[in-house]
Amino acid sequence: MRTTVGIIGGGPAGLLLARLLHRAGIDSVVLESRDRAYVEHRQRAGILEQGTVDVLRAAGAGERLDREGLRHDGIELRFDGRRHRVDFPGATGGRSVMVYAQTEVCKDLIALQLKEGGPLLFEAQALAVEGADGDRPRIPFRHQGREDVLECDYAVGCDGFWGVTRGAFPPALSRVFERTYPYAWLGILADVAPSHDELVYARHDRGFALLSMRPPVTRHQPSREVAPLPIESFVSRLYLQVPAGTDAEEWTDDEIWSELERRFETEDDWRLERGPITQKSVTPMRSFVHEPMRHGRLFLAGDAAHIVPPTGAKGLNLAVGDVATLARALAHRKETGSPELLDAYSATCLRRVWQAERFSWDMTTMLHPAPDATPFDARLQLARLERIASCRAAETDLAEAYTGFPLG
Amino acid sequence: MRTTVGIIGGGPAGLLLARLLHRAGIDSVVLESRDRAYVEHRQRAGILEQGTVDVLRAAGAGERLDREGLRHDGIELRFDGRRHRVDFPGATGGRSVMVYAQTEVCKDLIALQLKEGGPLLFEAQALAVEGADGDRPRIPFRHQGREDVLECDYAVGCDGFWGVTRGAFPPALSRVFERTYPYAWLGILADVAPSHDELVYARHDRGFALLSMRPPVTRHQPSREVAPLPIESFVSRLYLQVPAGTDAEEWTDDEIWSELERRFETEDDWRLERGPITQKSVTPMRSFVHEPMRHGRLFLAGDAAHIVPPTGAKGLNLAVGDVATLARALAHRKETGSPELLDAYSATCLRRVWQAERFSWDMTTMLHPAPDATPFDARLQLARLERIASCRAAETDLAEAYTGFPLG
Repeated sequence: MRTTVGIIGGGPAGLLLARLLHRAGIDSVVLESRDRAYVEHRQRAGILEQGTVDVLRAAGAGERLDREGLRHDGIELRFDGRRHRVDFPGATGGRSVMVYAQTEVCKDLIALQLKEGGPLLFEAQALAVEGADGDRPRIPFRHQGREDVLECDYAVGCDGFWGVTRGAFPPALSRVFERTYPYAWLGILADVAPSHDELVYARHDRGFALLSMRPPVTRHQPSREVAPLPIESFVSRLYLQVPAGTDAEEWTDDEIWSELERRFETEDDWRLERGPITQKSVTPMRSFVHEPMRHGRLFLAGDAAHIVPPTGAKGLNLAVGDVATLARALAHRKETGSPELLDAYSATCLRRVWQAERFSWDMTTMLHPAPDATPFDARLQLARLERIASCRAAETDLAEAYTGFPLG
Repeated sequence: MRTTVGIIGGGPAGLLLARLLHRAGIDSVVLESRDRAYVEHRQRAGILEQGTVDVLRAAGAGERLDREGLRHDGIELRFDGRRHRVDFPGATGGRSVMVYAQTEVCKDLIALQLKEGGPLLFEAQALAVEGADGDRPRIPFRHQGREDVLECDYAVGCDGFWGVTRGAFPPALSRVFERTYPYAWLGILADVAPSHDELVYARHDRGFALLSMRPPVTRHQPSREVAPLPIESFVSRLYLQVPAGTDAEEWTDDEIWSELERRFETEDDWRLERGPITQKSVTPMRSFVHEPMRHGRLFLAGDAAHIVPPTGAKGLNLAVGDVATLARALAHRKETGSPELLDAYSATCLRRVWQAERFSWDMTTMLHPAPDATPFDARLQLARLERIASCRAAETDLAEAYTGFPLG
């Protein structure tokens, strides 16, 4: 097989890159190791920055997002029983975020790709990237029991933290930056209307908790009336800080709700609504960066190059930033012959990546009491939250970071 | 001996409190364990917030400060060879700081106290505070070989971190919050004009460095001319991060200058001027808060209640904030009979204290590589500095904190 851009990984980064390249008249092949159902149902982030929404719209993938996504103009910080709302448009001059799950982004991009894009091979396992520093990288892969090779002008690793492409960088050129955290998130999906209309980030001595949601899905129920009756199906997404290594099954549904209630406690009469829990899982937390993000004709994008803890909602947005930068650089190369933007790719992305790493670290450590935290650490967390609640500049700094760092 | 307010400690907190009370018509006695020369020559901080200057002026102690102090409108952050100036008035709507050494503040206040204030006893060692929860606290003390007792309506501990008054709080009521740091500051005074006209905070992989200064002292040199020739004598104050427990004598003058040069390195042709080193000392670094700051008729102010690492230049300013708050509360009590402000003293001060603790922690950990720092930590420090250099809100947050948190 031959193509211009060989893309390893069909998650949001790989799919969106293929889509952007298609719009720029550059052909590509996407190799995804899992099957379609897996990719379309893997629960991940759900907060899209303004810039991410703009990229998806420009890629022609904004139609359902604009119809079903929920625009959010703020978040609530909850600490010491107090509630402080950060007003995004007020603090940033009009910016906001969109709540729309990563699984839905993947479904939209897969449908577009199958309808009008280049080849998207599911259950196609890339085995290596060869010749990254030559003119024609080769990607041996296994698909439907057969071994094949994808030859390309450029290879892009969008295969996530556990993927193979990072291994194609010469060890002497690679620098790895990493931090793990002694806690994780126990996340649930529950069939109940969210108890607050924006995300609630709660810092409690017992641990962090996050209230989030999925956009309501409108279903048409069969009815004897002439017009079918639309029913909105609400989904809450909630998280609890738990010790690293926790098994989700250690927690009963009732224990989860009780613990959430404690951590979201307020001075007023706010109440957490319970509902049937339909999914339960534990997300480990990690900070990770691989430098550089390019070696010869091999590029890394998204989780293959960097991981952030989920507290700042930056993972998906960073991936979108990477592939938008890369697609522009490849289009620039095609149009002008200049490798200038490709040469700048790694440095351009890493500036934004490190700001997201910093922000994710700050949000995480401000809100999660560590197992070995001292009383001094607890007071420091409260002083940080108090600063955001009382200083316009500090609140603006947070709002600007949350709604998105500039691309490029 | 009898007085209204018994003040233990004649550093800047105790001296200023006595002065403010004198202006409010409340009598006091100050017991200072050291002699006058010691208090007047102990080298400490030298950055006064706008609010601190205002309090000193209102106390009638601003005359020499206004003549000799240097108004500073910014600081420079130096990292990765780059230089970023934080413009205080531009970011905060006109606020700035004053460079004027704590020793000079003490000299001014001692002169005023001896001229027109209540008793200020040097080499008077307070031994305890008794009956803090009754109506008449008693302070036994030793002075000129004799034991005596100071009886008062209110006792105030301004006797620093190592003082005795904190011990008069019942252990069951005391909460202590503390962090130590694995590094210290090696500080020098040098007879050379400062190489930059504002403070330079440098973050380097080899460690932190700070360039600071004392206001030039104008001396009148004997001369054969009719009018004596004024000579300005410049003093640089410079600091190096060194491991905790370092002895200043481990470093030769030449090693100090060479290390300072390396840490202040820039991409441009900026140069560090050397000069004779006249004093060398090591400052340990610690964060510490004692809660509450009041028990019955006993109050803590300044270092007796809280310590910050020196990076944020907050120690002296917090002390001034405490005693201004306390003087106002005592005057309110005298004028109205209401204990309302005295009752609020601890909570009022602690809000400001914790913001200063937070800011000092952030400045310290952003600029000092820890001995066990990982490459990830180093990148995080650079990302923080880059954020301040590139985001107006983050820069404003820093500038507002540096120039001072509101009193009360």
